[in-house]
Amino acid sequence: MENTQYATSIPEIDAAVDHLCSPRSLGSVWLQSAQSSRMPQTAVLREIMQRLRAILFPGYFGSSVTSGSVKYHIAANLDSVYHLLADQIRRGFTFLHAIQGDEQDAQETADRANACTINLIQEIPKIRDLLALDAQAAYEGDPAASSPAETIFCYPSLYAMVHHRIAHVLYENKVPLIPRMIQEMAHSHTGIDIHPGASIGSHFFIDHGTGVVIGETSIIGDHCRLYQGVTLGALSFPKNADGTLVKGFARHPILGNKVTVYAGATILGRIHIGDKCVIGGNVWVTEDIPEGSHVVQGKHIQ
Amino acid sequence: MENTQYATSIPEIDAAVDHLCSPRSLGSVWLQSAQSSRMPQTAVLREIMQRLRAILFPGYFGSSVTSGSVKYHIAANLDSVYHLLADQIRRGFTFLHAIQGDEQDAQETADRANACTINLIQEIPKIRDLLALDAQAAYEGDPAASSPAETIFCYPSLYAMVHHRIAHVLYENKVPLIPRMIQEMAHSHTGIDIHPGASIGSHFFIDHGTGVVIGETSIIGDHCRLYQGVTLGALSFPKNADGTLVKGFARHPILGNKVTVYAGATILGRIHIGDKCVIGGNVWVTEDIPEGSHVVQGKHIQ
Amino acid sequence: MENTQYATSIPEIDAAVDHLCSPRSLGSVWLQSAQSSRMPQTAVLREIMQRLRAILFPGYFGSSVTSGSVKYHIAANLDSVYHLLADQIRRGFTFLHAIQGDEQDAQETADRANACTINLIQEIPKIRDLLALDAQAAYEGDPAASSPAETIFCYPSLYAMVHHRIAHVLYENKVPLIPRMIQEMAHSHTGIDIHPGASIGSHFFIDHGTGVVIGETSIIGDHCRLYQGVTLGALSFPKNADGTLVKGFARHPILGNKVTVYAGATILGRIHIGDKCVIGGNVWVTEDIPEGSHVVQGKHIQ
Amino acid sequence: MENTQYATSIPEIDAAVDHLCSPRSLGSVWLQSAQSSRMPQTAVLREIMQRLRAILFPGYFGSSVTSGSVKYHIAANLDSVYHLLADQIRRGFTFLHAIQGDEQDAQETADRANACTINLIQEIPKIRDLLALDAQAAYEGDPAASSPAETIFCYPSLYAMVHHRIAHVLYENKVPLIPRMIQEMAHSHTGIDIHPGASIGSHFFIDHGTGVVIGETSIIGDHCRLYQGVTLGALSFPKNADGTLVKGFARHPILGNKVTVYAGATILGRIHIGDKCVIGGNVWVTEDIPEGSHVVQGKHIQ
Amino acid sequence: MENTQYATSIPEIDAAVDHLCSPRSLGSVWLQSAQSSRMPQTAVLREIMQRLRAILFPGYFGSSVTSGSVKYHIAANLDSVYHLLADQIRRGFTFLHAIQGDEQDAQETADRANACTINLIQEIPKIRDLLALDAQAAYEGDPAASSPAETIFCYPSLYAMVHHRIAHVLYENKVPLIPRMIQEMAHSHTGIDIHPGASIGSHFFIDHGTGVVIGETSIIGDHCRLYQGVTLGALSFPKNADGTLVKGFARHPILGNKVTVYAGATILGRIHIGDKCVIGGNVWVTEDIPEGSHVVQGKHIQ
Amino acid sequence: MENTQYATSIPEIDAAVDHLCSPRSLGSVWLQSAQSSRMPQTAVLREIMQRLRAILFPGYFGSSVTSGSVKYHIAANLDSVYHLLADQIRRGFTFLHAIQGDEQDAQETADRANACTINLIQEIPKIRDLLALDAQAAYEGDPAASSPAETIFCYPSLYAMVHHRIAHVLYENKVPLIPRMIQEMAHSHTGIDIHPGASIGSHFFIDHGTGVVIGETSIIGDHCRLYQGVTLGALSFPKNADGTLVKGFARHPILGNKVTVYAGATILGRIHIGDKCVIGGNVWVTEDIPEGSHVVQGKHIQ
Repeated sequence: MENTQYATSIPEIDAAVDHLCSPRSLGSVWLQSAQSSRMPQTAVLREIMQRLRAILFPGYFGSSVTSGSVKYHIAANLDSVYHLLADQIRRGFTFLHAIQGDEQDAQETADRANACTINLIQEIPKIRDLLALDAQAAYEGDPAASSPAETIFCYPSLYAMVHHRIAHVLYENKVPLIPRMIQEMAHSHTGIDIHPGASIGSHFFIDHGTGVVIGETSIIGDHCRLYQGVTLGALSFPKNADGTLVKGFARHPILGNKVTVYAGATILGRIHIGDKCVIGGNVWVTEDIPEGSHVVQGKHIQ
Repeated sequence: MENTQYATSIPEIDAAVDHLCSPRSLGSVWLQSAQSSRMPQTAVLREIMQRLRAILFPGYFGSSVTSGSVKYHIAANLDSVYHLLADQIRRGFTFLHAIQGDEQDAQETADRANACTINLIQEIPKIRDLLALDAQAAYEGDPAASSPAETIFCYPSLYAMVHHRIAHVLYENKVPLIPRMIQEMAHSHTGIDIHPGASIGSHFFIDHGTGVVIGETSIIGDHCRLYQGVTLGALSFPKNADGTLVKGFARHPILGNKVTVYAGATILGRIHIGDKCVIGGNVWVTEDIPEGSHVVQGKHIQ
Repeated sequence: MENTQYATSIPEIDAAVDHLCSPRSLGSVWLQSAQSSRMPQTAVLREIMQRLRAILFPGYFGSSVTSGSVKYHIAANLDSVYHLLADQIRRGFTFLHAIQGDEQDAQETADRANACTINLIQEIPKIRDLLALDAQAAYEGDPAASSPAETIFCYPSLYAMVHHRIAHVLYENKVPLIPRMIQEMAHSHTGIDIHPGASIGSHFFIDHGTGVVIGETSIIGDHCRLYQGVTLGALSFPKNADGTLVKGFARHPILGNKVTVYAGATILGRIHIGDKCVIGGNVWVTEDIPEGSHVVQGKHIQ
Repeated sequence: MENTQYATSIPEIDAAVDHLCSPRSLGSVWLQSAQSSRMPQTAVLREIMQRLRAILFPGYFGSSVTSGSVKYHIAANLDSVYHLLADQIRRGFTFLHAIQGDEQDAQETADRANACTINLIQEIPKIRDLLALDAQAAYEGDPAASSPAETIFCYPSLYAMVHHRIAHVLYENKVPLIPRMIQEMAHSHTGIDIHPGASIGSHFFIDHGTGVVIGETSIIGDHCRLYQGVTLGALSFPKNADGTLVKGFARHPILGNKVTVYAGATILGRIHIGDKCVIGGNVWVTEDIPEGSHVVQGKHIQ
Repeated sequence: MENTQYATSIPEIDAAVDHLCSPRSLGSVWLQSAQSSRMPQTAVLREIMQRLRAILFPGYFGSSVTSGSVKYHIAANLDSVYHLLADQIRRGFTFLHAIQGDEQDAQETADRANACTINLIQEIPKIRDLLALDAQAAYEGDPAASSPAETIFCYPSLYAMVHHRIAHVLYENKVPLIPRMIQEMAHSHTGIDIHPGASIGSHFFIDHGTGVVIGETSIIGDHCRLYQGVTLGALSFPKNADGTLVKGFARHPILGNKVTVYAGATILGRIHIGDKCVIGGNVWVTEDIPEGSHVVQGKHIQ
Repeated sequence: MENTQYATSIPEIDAAVDHLCSPRSLGSVWLQSAQSSRMPQTAVLREIMQRLRAILFPGYFGSSVTSGSVKYHIAANLDSVYHLLADQIRRGFTFLHAIQGDEQDAQETADRANACTINLIQEIPKIRDLLALDAQAAYEGDPAASSPAETIFCYPSLYAMVHHRIAHVLYENKVPLIPRMIQEMAHSHTGIDIHPGASIGSHFFIDHGTGVVIGETSIIGDHCRLYQGVTLGALSFPKNADGTLVKGFARHPILGNKVTVYAGATILGRIHIGDKCVIGGNVWVTEDIPEGSHVVQGKHIQ
């Protein structure tokens, strides 16, 4: 076999290919048995989210429906979501097994993916209830909004919350990778970055939203409202004896009910912000705030 | 009729469908006669904005043109924009009527949509004039810019201002929903969130732009420049006797001419920032600032 | 020739066309010999970036590969990138010549575009090495990350750094427009805005990322970490005698190794942030910070 | 207004435009009030036919279904077909009115379009019954077929008959243009050209099919089989006193039951081909053929 | 450089690659300097034909137009056709030069491509005149047609003739490859195969059309009508002294005016079919037919 | 649970749904465990054929290549074809098992699909050799062809033969359904219908091609040429004792070398057409023809 047949006319390309395919270089990025044919698929997740939007808000999104025919479309979309999502979740588990170098029992993985999907489907009516209240909150909280319907149709807050409330159920079911991808789709679209682990109550509204970050272990009560650039973050990252980060411990704030956080405020650590607190714009908070407080610029709490 | 025919093999899906189609659940999101076939269409608005970009900046966007043929392409695009946009605006009015439960006279609605569209078309030459000055301001304000042409072709500020200057004319014509959708397309693309109601003078430039919020009743003079993360917001939301927000009153800042606002600054309330003021990064301002002031960190004005 | 044939039935459209095609209006936006057929093409750059992602992270992106076949796919993608990118770079030079009103020697331009592309291809192995370390840093820096693989597949930081490390090589080769377009693609997708001119060391990670701005002449050492909303900006813009901005001088910060900058911090000017510094959230820094300092709220350095 | 602004740099284009827009030239093709926005839409008809295929043959085409969920998908598709097709039929009537120069009552047209669509929907169960028998006939008639399922999935005969049996119902309801478009979609795809007016019994199969033509007033019994290149045509076209063709009279053959017509045979005129006849390849027939006859080459019947 | 890095895990793929890239195998199909980046592009030709249809039949195809705005759309489409087609024709010449091993002067080729395109544009008004008469002929010749407009919108004959009348002008200008590609697009869509070289008079109609073949040097008068499966072919192919076929000599029939040829008839050789002749279905003709003859089955003329 | 929730407002749709989902109606078309998620996918087969065309004729189809880089692209395409096609073949076997009601061993099916795919890959060099000779034959046989390259790029004969020669290898490997689908893709595109079972020698050319049918057990020697409308078919279909057709026995013609068959000729049954025979247009042949015969109209052989 003549090796020269492989040569391109441009030696720099050949050299780069050789480098990129050397065991050392490939090894630096090569996931054990990584194969794009087995990876979760962004385009399919996008279709799933579109069908879910049509299920949650019929008439606004998806095929045209009437009160007579709405059930048919919801049922067909839900059935398709079931098939499509179970497969994506299975891919998520496969990815996790590849990372962990686990043996994987194909049937067990499929069963587990199915169970997670069924659990999400059971939660969807509750998710719609919450989103309807979120729309009401958006309408009531934004003087520029003309109706809850408008906020359902085109507000970034509602878009982000559809993604979050779905992703959160999957996270609770310990589905790997998929909730994170659903989060990033909303993050990229809206600039609102809510970790799937965050627990968020009813009547939630984020105005404008760009730059909002809500960390993995955040807990938010009912009737809360955030503005753009708000961070609910961690204050420090304790490490294990071996120097690696401790993963998963409670490190983000807890907000009570009816808390408002204005633009650019930063709330860090496992602190409690009491009911009906108002945190002013650009304020920096790292300690508990008692119920009903108004915290403003110049009175940083740390 | 055997009802069991409707059953899927997966009872959880059936149960979720029943919940989601119950009058209580549907009622929580059901817009009176909402039908996606009558909703404004994001994909068509996207096409409209692409054609408008080709009209405003021939040679940069759209079909290839020469100085000899440019008029043909502008005319054809403008004629298509007229037809497409009038239909979208009609859909916007239909949405509004559905929300308000109004009777709608189809012909009257169509006539009003046409009139709004014609008014936009009349404004387009003026919009181009303003955008050309915005490109000049971007070039002059950014040491990294090599030409106004570069800013037209790929700067987020220009992208956002094309959307805003179009949306603002529609807002002034009291078109429902459509200006907001045009705003959100730019917001999602650039992270710059300018309410269609905001009034913005000539030679306007936003550098980087992510996180900028400009509220509905803001007024900005000529030759102003903002950086990323700047908020021109409201300080408070007065309520009506029934506890609902007062909608539409003047609640955002007025900036004079030649005002510069650095990254992360927050300017709130119906205050006046005088000509040639410079507001420093991360500064928080809630009171009038006299002409020519320089406001910096540590000297918060509230 | 009857002029009335040109008339549409709607005189406002005719009038707008006439205005928009008047020498004065066209002249305000008309690039000398601008032709969209000669402009760089966003859709092709998008394809190029997808192919580069498949080259850099085989198995994660692009066609399905095995350890046996990965070389074929890398080689084919690299060859296609070479052809496609050289053409886009040529278009970038053509755009520059049009702006500058230069005579352009077609062959010389093509040769220069080829040389720039070849140089990028030579750098790709090094770029992969750096990105693999970035993935490691993301995993180590985020308690919510389950593996470096997860960060490669769906973290905005890695997405932004793929674009930046490619764009930076092109910038160093003085390719006009194209690096900026690559930057803006990532900026729009992630909210992270890194100028192609910025020089960034190994093990770099940006958490969340929305609103981050890294200026053209910034220099960042190894093992640095930024959070959302961080600005590495310029403090002032000196002007030339004729009042225009001085372009391209060093005006952004230099960060040493192992520097961490928390959310919303602003670091401005050609200052040095020493090794192992920690800059707190929302902090404003405009002067040098010695090695090992911890700068927090309330202790603004300016 | 300067007319020269309209001039392209290439006078031949200007001259062609002037010619093409002259009243004489435009008038030769200009349909009274023709507007592409009101024309039937090939892409929508294509979607309608895909949904109908999914309704008729669930599991073969359209979303994945199980025996439990099939009803949901059929119902959702049928509801969408109803909305989409009623609109296309309305466009068909609008086209007809434009041609005839009729006044058109919009509501009456919409009602009539709805009624035609409802009638089709009522016929769809019967259409499926017939197509299932057609698949059985294809399997039994082609030694190369391995199952009826294979013929449903990829035989041109079944493809053409789905289109024909739908188009025929619309034709019977006097829907203009749409049945013809549905016919041409199948004709282009398969080379089989069956006029929507043709009446075709059960268990019908066309092998290979390219070049088959079945005229408007043809009547075909049950259990018939045709091969490629068969024509069931008209022998002559009587004219009215004014020299125009008499439209719509019965001019094509009647085939009894269990008739087989081999490749390339031509059967012309309002003649009767009796039950169980076999017409040989390339045979030319213009007179009645009694029941049970075998007609072969060299024994032309005319 | 380790060659084994190139090995896939499947040796049969490696072996096939080696075979396929061996000089012998590649050489059998390798066009001197063939590069797909320089080949004519089917997708672009498809766009060109769509734009030409919108130019020829405004209102039926392309953007919605009114009598007031039609000129804008025709002009914009014609300008785009000019740019797109000139480039495709240039690619056709490049292909020809590659085959012939010619040196090619790039400027000369571009000039020639431009000249050919301009010539086509000059002919388009005449082409529309002919197509309008073809639509009239289709309406008058088909008892199933309800109007000329219907035949413009969905008859295969009109579709094929749009392609042919365009391709014929390019053929006359000696454009390589492109006319043939335009022909094959129509052939694939309609089953009608008209060589671009054929010269066809006014009022031409082909009913059904599948299987019709009209050879390169055919000449057809005015008011002719063909049915499906008609061949106007060559009788023999004289060879040169070296055994190769003589290319390009007149070898196909000449049809006078008002000739009708019924389905499946075959007319071969450089013979004359006189005015007003009627050639019956399946008839085989290889000798001149005098004016006004009716030739039917059983009276073969050879 | 209220059943009336399922009712649409249009009772005819409900009634049709009930009919279509009744066990009797569904049962008539319901493939045991048919699921579109497990059916072969036309779109993927289309991609496979495009990649195969790029492998067989590099430079004509697929990415741009040079003599230096061609191997990379061929290898990458072949690897992708391997993965994609093995999956489609597996789906073909799954379909067959569903029809036959077989238990299916998933691993065994996958192994068999892989083996069939590998066998095709091994044959591809030979397939290219044959296609290169087919292109030569097309050039030599058509006075209108200017080069073999032209015939590769746009002749329907070459298009059909790429599909056939691929499908034939799969047929020989007893792959169900997939070869038939590949055949129908070419049949629909070209009007040439070659059963995958047919065995065809080298230097094969079909001119024009519409309406050509070549049956399953046909055998064609080298240097043969067919014209449009030629049928190589079966004369009769013997039945089994139970009245069903005998499947798969040799029932189509055998053509020797250098046989030419002119347009519309029909050759039926397991007969031998000797070397160098010429079968005239429209001739009907059902008996053996000795070597070197010329069969013409009026001398039917039956």
